[in-house]
Amino acid sequence: YLQDAFKVPLVIQLTDDEKCMWKNLSVEESKRLARENAKDIIACGFDISKTFIFQDFNYVGGTFYENMVRINKCVTYNKVVGIFGFTGEDHIGKISFPAVQAAPSFPSSFPHLFSGKDNLRSLIPCAIDQDPYFRMTRDVAPRLGYQKPALIESSFFPALQGETGKMSASDPNSAIYVTDSGKDIKNKVNKYAFSGGQDSIENHRKYGANLEVDIPVKYLGFFLEDDAELEHIKREYGAGRMLTGEVKKRLTEVLTEIVERHCRARAAVTDEMVDAFMAVRPLPNMFN
Amino acid sequence: YLQDAFKVPLVIQLTDDEKCMWKNLSVEESKRLARENAKDIIACGFDISKTFIFQDFNYVGGTFYENMVRINKCVTYNKVVGIFGFTGEDHIGKISFPAVQAAPSFPSSFPHLFSGKDNLRSLIPCAIDQDPYFRMTRDVAPRLGYQKPALIESSFFPALQGETGKMSASDPNSAIYVTDSGKDIKNKVNKYAFSGGQDSIENHRKYGANLEVDIPVKYLGFFLEDDAELEHIKREYGAGRMLTGEVKKRLTEVLTEIVERHCRARAAVTDEMVDAFMAVRPLPNMFN
Repeated sequence: YLQDAFKVPLVIQLTDDEKCMWKNLSVEESKRLARENAKDIIACGFDISKTFIFQDFNYVGGTFYENMVRINKCVTYNKVVGIFGFTGEDHIGKISFPAVQAAPSFPSSFPHLFSGKDNLRSLIPCAIDQDPYFRMTRDVAPRLGYQKPALIESSFFPALQGETGKMSASDPNSAIYVTDSGKDIKNKVNKYAFSGGQDSIENHRKYGANLEVDIPVKYLGFFLEDDAELEHIKREYGAGRMLTGEVKKRLTEVLTEIVERHCRARAAVTDEMVDAFMAVRPLPNMFN
Repeated sequence: YLQDAFKVPLVIQLTDDEKCMWKNLSVEESKRLARENAKDIIACGFDISKTFIFQDFNYVGGTFYENMVRINKCVTYNKVVGIFGFTGEDHIGKISFPAVQAAPSFPSSFPHLFSGKDNLRSLIPCAIDQDPYFRMTRDVAPRLGYQKPALIESSFFPALQGETGKMSASDPNSAIYVTDSGKDIKNKVNKYAFSGGQDSIENHRKYGANLEVDIPVKYLGFFLEDDAELEHIKREYGAGRMLTGEVKKRLTEVLTEIVERHCRARAAVTDEMVDAFMAVRPLPNMFN
């Protein structure tokens, strides 16, 4: 969306090294997964003439590594402990990683894109859990003579089980996956999506649904493009005129359509396209 | 010498990133100094068909970086504190560096040289102060399925001022430099080289020199190729028949000749030769 609206170049970092260091994954498996991630990203429809995707295991080096070293010199161990809460038992890969996460904030890490434009300012859309890395980066930037990166932070998606739950890879029922079938989606939504509806139809008609905790409504807030319809559902459901089952049915339709659309798009992404997005190349008209 | 004797390939790491992180040097200046170091190294007469020289700022990346990450995962912060004595005030560049120093011990860091020969064992000639890095490396190697590197450790050269002193870049009189003129050398040896001779000629003739602390004799031990002449000097000087001035004169001759030879060889090293030694290339007959 940002790319469409502002016609800006986009650089996407896939931190396969982070996965390898935080999870119990081999280098090879982490690299493979990053390419799979790249396919999902490309399937979202980024403009190849304005987008450079890289994975750390392939790209770290050169001016990117130079920036890592410059950043490392500005950050003490005490500081990363304060920011990230590392302990002495953590391996030094974790302690080294902040500089890898920070380096892409600076244009000079990508000489094939921004040569001679070291003073460009970057905008980083990221999930809120990545915020500490970029606070650190903003702190370090002026000392290196670089612009501070700006951030747009997205909130987390609630788990199907409700706001207090956590989506977790170890619980496949906590989230809808883009690899889920229509049947999976229907089953998960009906069985696991936490409802704000009342315990009986009588009470529901009487008191209406609690929209604050209702997961199907929240998901529709993310995924239903028609704002008028969303308002309609909230009004009717909140007043008890619409039942949980009906809302869940609508959510299932919406999700199924999105997932099917994504699957079709992803199936069309070839290894050659991944290579093309990841090629270290100039993007000639990236600001047009 | 090892290369001549064993006909082995040699990989030389220039840790410009270490210089940049430990000293107050910019990335650019550290890179420039590494190229100057490379010229001194090449001037020693290494065989370009068996030697690959690299500087970290140019070479870190690819499988080298993969090995860095693998090594990082095996080493905790507590461990590097135990080995290197880091404190919380040290920057995270220092804490990250051990993996950079360790990675060249493993053949897979150099796919252009040792592709498919990951099980080769390396021999690392280094000064004794680098020992902690390679103890750590030997500790980590089996967990990564690699061979432990073997080490030949050289002792430090004593400072001109004597065994207890330290050669220091901040005191130009503590060492002979390869950039010193014949006059510099003569002056430094006569004025600063700590002598084991007695305080008067009479006492010297009577008691002889203390060879244990005499720096000119120690330096001749390093630099005089003729073992018979060295033994002769030690005997005569130790017995008081030879005077400090005579030993210093011989040392000045030897050093001047070596430095002049080095300067001639170094002047012949062009930037193109540095590029050639540093080119990432196969070494086709490196084991012949």
